[in-house]
Amino acid sequence: MFYPDTSSIAAIATPAGSGAIAVIRLSGADAFEIASRVFQPAGLEKNVCDYHTHTIHFGSIIDGKKHLDDVLLHIFRAPHSYTGENVAEISCHGSVYIQQQILQLLVKQGARLAQPGEFTLRAFLNRKMDLSRAEAVADLIASRSEAQHRIALQQMRGGVSGEIRFLREELIRFASLIELELDFSEEDVEFAGRKELLTLIETIREKISRLTESFETGNAIKNGIPVVIAGRTNVGKSTLLNVLLNEDRAIVSEIPGTTRDIIEDEIIMGGMVFRFIDTAGIRSATDAIEAEGVRRTLEKIKTSSVILYVFDVTEMKAEYLKTTIEDFRKLTSGNKSHLIPVGNKMDKSNLAETKKEFSSLGNILFISALKKLNIDLLRNKILEVSSAEAGFSGDIIISNARHWDAIVKADEALKRVEEGLTKNLTGELIAADLRMALNHLAAVTGEVSPEDLLENIFSRFCIGK
Amino acid sequence: MFYPDTSSIAAIATPAGSGAIAVIRLSGADAFEIASRVFQPAGLEKNVCDYHTHTIHFGSIIDGKKHLDDVLLHIFRAPHSYTGENVAEISCHGSVYIQQQILQLLVKQGARLAQPGEFTLRAFLNRKMDLSRAEAVADLIASRSEAQHRIALQQMRGGVSGEIRFLREELIRFASLIELELDFSEEDVEFAGRKELLTLIETIREKISRLTESFETGNAIKNGIPVVIAGRTNVGKSTLLNVLLNEDRAIVSEIPGTTRDIIEDEIIMGGMVFRFIDTAGIRSATDAIEAEGVRRTLEKIKTSSVILYVFDVTEMKAEYLKTTIEDFRKLTSGNKSHLIPVGNKMDKSNLAETKKEFSSLGNILFISALKKLNIDLLRNKILEVSSAEAGFSGDIIISNARHWDAIVKADEALKRVEEGLTKNLTGELIAADLRMALNHLAAVTGEVSPEDLLENIFSRFCIGK
Repeated sequence: MFYPDTSSIAAIATPAGSGAIAVIRLSGADAFEIASRVFQPAGLEKNVCDYHTHTIHFGSIIDGKKHLDDVLLHIFRAPHSYTGENVAEISCHGSVYIQQQILQLLVKQGARLAQPGEFTLRAFLNRKMDLSRAEAVADLIASRSEAQHRIALQQMRGGVSGEIRFLREELIRFASLIELELDFSEEDVEFAGRKELLTLIETIREKISRLTESFETGNAIKNGIPVVIAGRTNVGKSTLLNVLLNEDRAIVSEIPGTTRDIIEDEIIMGGMVFRFIDTAGIRSATDAIEAEGVRRTLEKIKTSSVILYVFDVTEMKAEYLKTTIEDFRKLTSGNKSHLIPVGNKMDKSNLAETKKEFSSLGNILFISALKKLNIDLLRNKILEVSSAEAGFSGDIIISNARHWDAIVKADEALKRVEEGLTKNLTGELIAADLRMALNHLAAVTGEVSPEDLLENIFSRFCIGK
Repeated sequence: MFYPDTSSIAAIATPAGSGAIAVIRLSGADAFEIASRVFQPAGLEKNVCDYHTHTIHFGSIIDGKKHLDDVLLHIFRAPHSYTGENVAEISCHGSVYIQQQILQLLVKQGARLAQPGEFTLRAFLNRKMDLSRAEAVADLIASRSEAQHRIALQQMRGGVSGEIRFLREELIRFASLIELELDFSEEDVEFAGRKELLTLIETIREKISRLTESFETGNAIKNGIPVVIAGRTNVGKSTLLNVLLNEDRAIVSEIPGTTRDIIEDEIIMGGMVFRFIDTAGIRSATDAIEAEGVRRTLEKIKTSSVILYVFDVTEMKAEYLKTTIEDFRKLTSGNKSHLIPVGNKMDKSNLAETKKEFSSLGNILFISALKKLNIDLLRNKILEVSSAEAGFSGDIIISNARHWDAIVKADEALKRVEEGLTKNLTGELIAADLRMALNHLAAVTGEVSPEDLLENIFSRFCIGK
């Protein structure tokens, strides 16, 4: 359906439900003709089809003789619109009934309901933005934290595309020299200096390596930084989680409309989303670390960024805690997770004595979830240990798994080019791998993009975008 | 706070939650200055303060050096805006995070958060619309059915205001003649013909009477037509309600975003909202009609427009049904409620025999809620009996209790004028009552409107309107 489709599509672009106003978006070759059939200007204005781009017009939506609403009509002429097509946006009173009536009327007059992401897909197909930037639009809309928003915005404004394009340009220059050699292959000339090419590939692979490494950060920011709250039963894990959740909720719920977006076990701290993970079964896990039934819990612990090991200060002995901490360190060795031992129930204990008991271990955070003691210290500690990996210095960060995959594949091809050059292989083999690397990089920005890939990407969008 | 307040107010005008786009509205004397501090045009455009009215501009929202979003800025110059003030609307990406950030930024730059209905209040204070029309905006946004929408739209477009203004104009002419007489009272002249005045008052009171009568319809449409499902336990009342609700839900839930607005026991049929009322306790009510404990149920039955009396055809006897129906008729005598006897469980009964059993009673609807037999017939019957009162022939309908109250009070004053004229009372007394009638009518359109009344009205609006 993709390429030649300029039929007009319509959708409600504002959030679902009722509000002061709602916006219905209409885009396509005959968007203005359709709009002119339903819009009656209030004044002595010309026909909709003659309106200038980027102008707003007051009038009524009419269905034959039936008057539906008083609205504002916003006009964007191709190519100066989001989709690159003619776009009319109707800003109506925000009752669900009116929104539906107007949408249905547009369909009756020749538009069809837009698929999820179809407006942005058209923007991509009409070269208003490349694929990586188009994908960022969905991320931007889905972003709930400052860090998510920053990464999505960077990508939407072409940060990732620019970096990829820069890498490709360098490679293309050399690739074309190699291809040229092939044309003159019988004459045994070398247009492309092998040594320079090798140096270039090294530089590029280094840059790619930084990009792929950034994916760990990008992914954590996009999907939330995984935090495991571990510990035996009855040490106050859920009280602690609730204290963390509730404090956060209190902040978030000042903002109307956000509450419904909060997922039970997600907390936004310091502009980042933290995903708290249930660890029912951790007790048996620390008791019988090899047991089959607790493998999943262990897997969660292994892949988490932060582990809060909560224990009851009135029961825990320093010796046992030391062993447990060592067990955790073994379990998570090789990945970047941070263990924070948290001594809970300090309201029932003497601080000096407790500190003495655990003095040999150091770095334990003593709190009382019940009395909300030192919770701020704990939050700061979580932020501190995760900020290194979620740090964002303005460098380009990959947060899209598809991009990561494409870059990794490009890197593999470049590795073969490198080997080929070292082993002095023929130009044909090197050229083939170079081409493959270039194709993988091109997939990020959508310069190479099969239809099914596009369908897959845009079907994840919300309707109206 | 009302009259001299031209400080800039800001609010999210689109429904709460995330969507493709959201609109943030900014209105006030310095709306453009505030917008210019946060908006950076994409091209080489002039300053926001120089933009023409009704134009759209692409650019970025910036907080100092921090880039928040790419947006469209919509410009409406006073007085050509909704509020009559300078209005800037920012159409941004619809993530909750972005919406909040931009709103907070506007506040940081000098706007304040708008109160519910404050934009419309300003529209009223700046004479963009009268009070009755302003109130209709809230009704329009809240409307869920065709009939609600039609009444609200009629009122918003000035239907009610026009009618009231027409009545007032006639009265004012006579009132001024009477006032003139008072100035010449020592000379004992009669500028205002008593007979003509009497005829006029009669005509106006007749028109007012039609308006007050229309309130029953208007109120039923606005708040839903009350339908009681009565009957003994186990006759299939809840099955029937579910069948009615589910069928309706299936239709409504095709429309995204409407589900959350549906209230458990409301059904939209034939463009009208029907409010189905729980009648737990009706069994004892029909058994012991005077019992103290069932007074509330009886009250509900008394004030309902439609009563579905559901019985089990396999158990009910014609004699008993006859008595019950008579009891209901006694109970509801004097009001306009319609009783529909509904014979349920026809799937367990022989149609011919059942019809014979109840042949003496006539007008019974035989259904099977379980097998969904004749449900359409029942729906049509409900629509038929309630359509008389909810009929809408294009006449002006009062749906606002405040208007109804004002009109009723105006009518009382006019009645006193009428009596005064008949009894040949002095001009002073007649003039006083005429003035009172005029004031009550003026309250509808807000020509007389104390601050606390305005606060009361607009506080019921949603924020952003």
